[in-house]
Amino acid sequence: MKTKLQIVKIGGNIIDDEKLLADFLSDFSKIDDLKILVHGGGKLASKMNDKLGIETVMNEGRRITSQENLEVVTMIYGGLISKKITAKLQANSCNAIGISGADGNCILAKKRPVKSIDFGFVGDIESVNTSVISTFLNNNIVPIFSAICHDGNGQLLNTNADTIASEIAIAMSNIYETELIYCFEKNGVLKDVSDENSVIRHIDNAAYKTLKTEKVISEGMLPKLENCFYALNNKVQKVSIGNQKMITDNNSICTTITL
Amino acid sequence: MKTKLQIVKIGGNIIDDEKLLADFLSDFSKIDDLKILVHGGGKLASKMNDKLGIETVMNEGRRITSQENLEVVTMIYGGLISKKITAKLQANSCNAIGISGADGNCILAKKRPVKSIDFGFVGDIESVNTSVISTFLNNNIVPIFSAICHDGNGQLLNTNADTIASEIAIAMSNIYETELIYCFEKNGVLKDVSDENSVIRHIDNAAYKTLKTEKVISEGMLPKLENCFYALNNKVQKVSIGNQKMITDNNSICTTITL
Repeated sequence: MKTKLQIVKIGGNIIDDEKLLADFLSDFSKIDDLKILVHGGGKLASKMNDKLGIETVMNEGRRITSQENLEVVTMIYGGLISKKITAKLQANSCNAIGISGADGNCILAKKRPVKSIDFGFVGDIESVNTSVISTFLNNNIVPIFSAICHDGNGQLLNTNADTIASEIAIAMSNIYETELIYCFEKNGVLKDVSDENSVIRHIDNAAYKTLKTEKVISEGMLPKLENCFYALNNKVQKVSIGNQKMITDNNSICTTITL
Repeated sequence: MKTKLQIVKIGGNIIDDEKLLADFLSDFSKIDDLKILVHGGGKLASKMNDKLGIETVMNEGRRITSQENLEVVTMIYGGLISKKITAKLQANSCNAIGISGADGNCILAKKRPVKSIDFGFVGDIESVNTSVISTFLNNNIVPIFSAICHDGNGQLLNTNADTIASEIAIAMSNIYETELIYCFEKNGVLKDVSDENSVIRHIDNAAYKTLKTEKVISEGMLPKLENCFYALNNKVQKVSIGNQKMITDNNSICTTITL
């Protein structure tokens, strides 16, 4: 039987809230299985853009990444947030290592080709280095990935954190029994965005189609759910979306996704 | 016989010059022995301070590190410079991993006690985790250290890069035959700062005393030389100061330090 590996992605609203982040990191440290954390940090990058007078341009929730923008996300995701999370996890006796996809050549990406939109220095993932990541895990080192990858030719690329999490989960499923957890400030996928008690407990393919047709699932949630089904279709064992309680409490309310 | 390990520290003027940095990283990649790189990045941090309207206060070449300053050096050293160097080394087929002392709990430091001066969030190194660093080296992963450490209680601390290099060299000398190389834009320790051809080829304890008395060695060079002798007094095999040519060319002119 394969060893279990949990891949947890945290959303920007947890990162931006000091108390929520501290609670989350304490819970994350308590996961007994092998584990990997993936984070973005979008709001802090936009705030830094404002301070530096750099324009923030989004297209369907994706950041158009100019050279200046790339430097900011590299500083904020790869530096400030990555090192803060790492230091706090170390204080929780979790031997974290805050890395990007360039570090250890963990994640290779390709600059997104220009079609109708030029996303700039945005990367689409090409491969995940399961060997190096396994080396970390086998030595009780917990990888904390920021959403920056590289192209192997010296170019850093901004990459969507949800996608990094699903691609890592898929690649690692050849070696481990992987579980993918999208953790954010809400209790799960909500039927009514204004009602935290309206969590949809279970979404399968058929339910997803209906929810899309009925427009219950909002724009931002669509790519996340696409990532969930993509992972399940590629050997990831379990996928769920919810708040951080689900990390330590198996009976916590959340949304479970199945095929 | 112990395996050789080279610990190379690069100065800020190399980091600030794109061409020098690219040449250095190409040379560094060619080192056959096990290797570790240590970098700071002072000038870029000060430039970012200027952009953000944060005051840069130095005392005897050491940065007084307020909370705001700590965030800037974490972004710049731990993020921007660390990831740029890592991506460029990867392009040179060197499996680099850009980390801080917090990552993998590699370097524990203690906030410097306030005496006549309050240095703020500046750390003095307490211990180096030779076990984790060896794990990287044994797996052909090349650690690239930025000058940020942690106190084990969740606090990041700004630390002098020269000191990090010497402390790593000393700690690793229990396992490896270590060589410490301070690499900067000059050819070595100069008798006349304005004359690149005035390299002092060899400095031992006696010569150092004379050079200090004669005030040949300038303020900035004093702590670097103190680090050199400290390393030699603590089992580091070889210490040298010079430009990047000495990395690939054994006959290159540089300053060799001995006891």
